[in-house]
Amino acid sequence: MEWKEELQQHTKEAEKVVQGYLPEETGHQKLLIEASNYSVLVGGKRLRPMIMLESFKAFGGTGNVVEPFMAALEMIHSGSLVHDDLPCMDNDEYRRGNLTTWKKYGYDMAVLAGDKLFIYAFEIAAKAFALTDRADLVGKAISILANKAGIYGMIGGQSVDVEYTDRPVTKSQLEFIYELKTAALLEAAMMIGAVLAGADDNQVKAAEQIAHHVGMAFQIRDDILDVISTTEELGKPVKSDEKNNKTTYVTIYGLDGASKLVEEYSHTAMTLLDQVCPNASFLKRLFEYLIVRKK
Amino acid sequence: MEWKEELQQHTKEAEKVVQGYLPEETGHQKLLIEASNYSVLVGGKRLRPMIMLESFKAFGGTGNVVEPFMAALEMIHSGSLVHDDLPCMDNDEYRRGNLTTWKKYGYDMAVLAGDKLFIYAFEIAAKAFALTDRADLVGKAISILANKAGIYGMIGGQSVDVEYTDRPVTKSQLEFIYELKTAALLEAAMMIGAVLAGADDNQVKAAEQIAHHVGMAFQIRDDILDVISTTEELGKPVKSDEKNNKTTYVTIYGLDGASKLVEEYSHTAMTLLDQVCPNASFLKRLFEYLIVRKK
Repeated sequence: MEWKEELQQHTKEAEKVVQGYLPEETGHQKLLIEASNYSVLVGGKRLRPMIMLESFKAFGGTGNVVEPFMAALEMIHSGSLVHDDLPCMDNDEYRRGNLTTWKKYGYDMAVLAGDKLFIYAFEIAAKAFALTDRADLVGKAISILANKAGIYGMIGGQSVDVEYTDRPVTKSQLEFIYELKTAALLEAAMMIGAVLAGADDNQVKAAEQIAHHVGMAFQIRDDILDVISTTEELGKPVKSDEKNNKTTYVTIYGLDGASKLVEEYSHTAMTLLDQVCPNASFLKRLFEYLIVRKK
Repeated sequence: MEWKEELQQHTKEAEKVVQGYLPEETGHQKLLIEASNYSVLVGGKRLRPMIMLESFKAFGGTGNVVEPFMAALEMIHSGSLVHDDLPCMDNDEYRRGNLTTWKKYGYDMAVLAGDKLFIYAFEIAAKAFALTDRADLVGKAISILANKAGIYGMIGGQSVDVEYTDRPVTKSQLEFIYELKTAALLEAAMMIGAVLAGADDNQVKAAEQIAHHVGMAFQIRDDILDVISTTEELGKPVKSDEKNNKTTYVTIYGLDGASKLVEEYSHTAMTLLDQVCPNASFLKRLFEYLIVRKK
């Protein structure tokens, strides 16, 4: 099968699971449910739930216990985008060609839609208790989800990004932001897949490391693309980092240095993946695709 | 012991548990941790964790498995206040005499502080798995926490309140708002206490009903106080509902009708409490205090 077709098929599979957990648009709070479902439905490639499912399979998982967590992780990702777009944050009116949630449903409703997505994620995740006898594993997965989304994960990374919007960051702050803002939810995806499949602690640690290195390579690649691409290739404005005076891996390490780092992070990720999940061919292909992407 | 002294002692006890779960203000994301800890520390009587602990004891619970949930519930309550105060919502600059989080730390940081509190609540709650062998009960408690905080609880109630800020609501919408915005977290407190103590489904249902009726009585009493009190007695501006053209139980049922409803809700709550937890004398006193309060 062609790669693009294969990717599309996996996206559809993940999409179906996510959509299956969207609440019905009914009741007095209908408008909020509409707003938060809209925020999820307009979005993306479903990479995080897709990676979670592949990790689950790669570690020998069977059954559907992973599904609530696939949806939960995507809801948290969507919630973070809704709040990122707010006027007090990035003030974006469009995302992927659609009106952002606050532009469509109002500022106040967008704050509540993000809140709802964060909390509903755990309501969904907890449904996994009914799908398995291993309540301990579901508990572990919930801990990982909260940890990687919260103060020591995504939200923590965003807070430093926001704090330094108009000031240069240091090398270690930049690494911290990329680790937490980008890599953390990928780590959650790989780790939760592994945990629910019954992987041991060393395997879960390896899953975390793989995702960590993929996430870093992906984000540094993003810095490089902003410099070397044309707007046509990238499908979004280029040189935006330079215009915004943003510190990036390119401003710190130069183009060559940043490219070398992408290679290193990528090599480590792939070596580990080969060791731990030698048969995870789709996952390997997906990570390569994410790291060498042209847009 | 005098009632005020007894209440103060219980507040201190709950306060200590909540404070024990606040994250250390360190690391790159220090500012966000400061902002979210500030939001928790400026606040209140710790009623929700206090009620949860009393419910836990009343249903025969022992040990400390309830403590992470006490802190988690208070974090969710605090997070909702942080977002309630935002300029796009109530636009409040002070709460209990202190600057609100967005006035002190900025609009963007306040959005993230609320997000962090919602997510961190589940990270804390999941710590309970390490405190008991009954992972199933902890799982049930997490489900209740998410359900009563989210779209079918607090956030759902807020969304209808926000949607109808400048329009009259119907009787059933008003009841819905009070049920979800006010009663839901009290229900979570009573139910989670019961669940973690090992109460059976009927007892948990009764715990929910008790809190529901107390919450409704409390909120209708609030409508009444806004009309009958002086600013001096209440410690905050009175007649604010009338000024804001707000639909309340008093505008719908009149003062006498609303008072009668308070009595009915209160009577049902107390009768149920006597049946299910005949020895919960502090809880009984606390509920009476909340319902007949003068401010």
